[in-house]
Amino acid sequence: MTDSTALLTDQYELTMVQGALRSGTAGRRAVFEMFGRRLPPGRRYGVVAGTGRLLEALARFRFDDAALASLREHTALDDDTLAWLADYRFTGDVWGYPEGEVWFPHSPLLVVEGTFAEAVVLETLALSVYNHDSAVAAAASRMVGAARGRPCIEMGSRRTHEESAVAAARAAYVAGFATTSNLAAGQRWGIPTAGTSAHSFTLLHDSEEAAFRAQVDALGPGTTLLVDTYDVHAAVRTAVEVAGPGLGAVRLDSGDLGVLAQEVRAQLDELGATGTRIVVTSDLDEHAIASLAAAPVDAYGVGTQLVTGSGHPTSGLVYKLVAREGADGELVAVAKRSPGKDSHGGRKWAARRVEDGRATAEVVGTGERPDDPSLRDLLVPLVRAGEVVGAEDLDRARERHAAVRAELPAAATRMSRGEAVLPTVDA
Amino acid sequence: MTDSTALLTDQYELTMVQGALRSGTAGRRAVFEMFGRRLPPGRRYGVVAGTGRLLEALARFRFDDAALASLREHTALDDDTLAWLADYRFTGDVWGYPEGEVWFPHSPLLVVEGTFAEAVVLETLALSVYNHDSAVAAAASRMVGAARGRPCIEMGSRRTHEESAVAAARAAYVAGFATTSNLAAGQRWGIPTAGTSAHSFTLLHDSEEAAFRAQVDALGPGTTLLVDTYDVHAAVRTAVEVAGPGLGAVRLDSGDLGVLAQEVRAQLDELGATGTRIVVTSDLDEHAIASLAAAPVDAYGVGTQLVTGSGHPTSGLVYKLVAREGADGELVAVAKRSPGKDSHGGRKWAARRVEDGRATAEVVGTGERPDDPSLRDLLVPLVRAGEVVGAEDLDRARERHAAVRAELPAAATRMSRGEAVLPTVDA
Repeated sequence: MTDSTALLTDQYELTMVQGALRSGTAGRRAVFEMFGRRLPPGRRYGVVAGTGRLLEALARFRFDDAALASLREHTALDDDTLAWLADYRFTGDVWGYPEGEVWFPHSPLLVVEGTFAEAVVLETLALSVYNHDSAVAAAASRMVGAARGRPCIEMGSRRTHEESAVAAARAAYVAGFATTSNLAAGQRWGIPTAGTSAHSFTLLHDSEEAAFRAQVDALGPGTTLLVDTYDVHAAVRTAVEVAGPGLGAVRLDSGDLGVLAQEVRAQLDELGATGTRIVVTSDLDEHAIASLAAAPVDAYGVGTQLVTGSGHPTSGLVYKLVAREGADGELVAVAKRSPGKDSHGGRKWAARRVEDGRATAEVVGTGERPDDPSLRDLLVPLVRAGEVVGAEDLDRARERHAAVRAELPAAATRMSRGEAVLPTVDA
Repeated sequence: MTDSTALLTDQYELTMVQGALRSGTAGRRAVFEMFGRRLPPGRRYGVVAGTGRLLEALARFRFDDAALASLREHTALDDDTLAWLADYRFTGDVWGYPEGEVWFPHSPLLVVEGTFAEAVVLETLALSVYNHDSAVAAAASRMVGAARGRPCIEMGSRRTHEESAVAAARAAYVAGFATTSNLAAGQRWGIPTAGTSAHSFTLLHDSEEAAFRAQVDALGPGTTLLVDTYDVHAAVRTAVEVAGPGLGAVRLDSGDLGVLAQEVRAQLDELGATGTRIVVTSDLDEHAIASLAAAPVDAYGVGTQLVTGSGHPTSGLVYKLVAREGADGELVAVAKRSPGKDSHGGRKWAARRVEDGRATAEVVGTGERPDDPSLRDLLVPLVRAGEVVGAEDLDRARERHAAVRAELPAAATRMSRGEAVLPTVDA
């Protein structure tokens, strides 16, 4: 294991450096832009997540001895290129949408300016971080919307790669999830963690009662008891007997959750456990959450569908060269012409038009930004001359997302499939 | 950053330890089993991947000072539990399907035996590794089948979390992919890496010709030139002019790949570049690969659909307690009764029935394994008394997968949706 993030990179980034060193173009100033050509089908807005993680990873983007030795052994990179990599430090500038913001087709989420060579090698890492984290955050944001103020608990670690799991917990928190089951997310970013027991704990004991008693002894009566290992209603009765009417919560993890929640609520109330909450889990997605709006559910635990982006596990973000220095030293706008893969040349500014507190358009332009008080600038400095200047507390991103989402048209929170809720317009 | 993998864990694993320590059941012998209740819809077989990664991660599963400090700060775990975690070493046994094997509903991919407490805390990490890696390998295996001997290149790093990307490259290699774009996969496991250039390299230069010349100067005429930045046919002409008829390959990344490949093949042949290969990329999945079977394509580059499991980004594997010591010291089979979430109690043996070189059934039993020469045992020792004994070279897993897949009924390689190609039967 190494702290270096430099080899989390596609080989072609480095062969391009070698080619550019050979042709004398490696040092040309260049502007790369990260954007999505479209939202995933049916989605109404995207969510920017990963910014803070990329800034952390950027500081560790160094070709250390182990990395260089591996490149020497496994690739055909030449000595000039390896020497250039050994000295690599990003010295350019990065602007980006602040974390927690929303995005639309062609929003320039990230703008990286430097020499071609120093900026191109960041492509893979930047896209990996944003494509994953934004996919999870977008799903999470819809789930939080569907939950209408009831807390959502992230518990998808077991369904995704062990490091994706940690990043997913972070992205979900940015989008408004209350807690996560993932302990590393607590360690790295102080995200509140939650979790009490699985079915195996009940099965380990000689009776459900013995299991409940063990858990209440260990975690107090405020704990959440899992009541669907055998018979739900018998378990609820036992739970209240063991923990008393001050029992924190019961968890339902199978069956018809809406019907069960009604029955269990009535049973709990009858037993005097009127303050005991009902937590539901079991393959929930935003639609299942929405369908439980009328049920007496107090919290939703979400796993698989959250960490897999609820049908859209990646965000479709790309990182494209939009301008580079010409032979005369001036920046020229560039764009490829491949069919179906349009991109717009030139360095962009971006702003959200907000009128009477309501967002009405995503405005992206290459020329002069109009002096218009209804426009809120979206690009903030993240790195200046190689120094990270955009690091911020994760709670700031979480608050930003809540505020920005509240500003979107009401259609943003509809669960049905639809078009982007804001048009992307040219200034 | 820390080398410890211990906090890549759901909080409930540790609160269960606390409860079991309190009730005196933490030291009961227990058998956990990892299995899938079903294959992802339409899939005909699963692929076991992640075994080697889990064994690496297991060796680093230690609650170090930083982990303990975080647990003390962020959770309500008590001193007894923290002391137990500080001393944690897995001392039990693990058996598993060897990496590269295939699996079917209820195949016991992994069997973990130890005390309840030492075995339960491995649940999250084990599932994270297997659910991810097996999902990618299953998609990769279908793609390799569809490619009918033409090499597949893994290039999905930009579409998934940066560490998932490395694991995905490894899983794809196990399933038969030839190379990966991911440099860390080369560093960690010696997987062959590939990659030459993106559109930005062409756009950086003052002309396509200048870009091609730079690349050929830097990487030799055997390189792969990307020919769809502007006009494909003009680019192919330029490419052969610059590199000569010994040009290694051209890459097509947009448009109607079947038609374009035909045209480009004819053009290359006419230019005398009869040995120049055609590599196609652009959102390929197994169906797109199959549809190009008749086109003069020499290699497939696959990204998004590979790393997202081609519609099934996770494998649906669960880790369940199937037996534990009772008060009398004997192992008892246990299983929960939650509706729709069946599991079968008891420690299993598993074998594949192979008759005349053709697999005919997945045989899973809890009793005595019959003495039947048509049964090939599937569980091998991975960890004995805490010591890893099942580590193996990655190429061994890759060879195993090719051999095992060749043994499956012909329906296994059909692209259409279908049922599991082998029945899982009780002995």
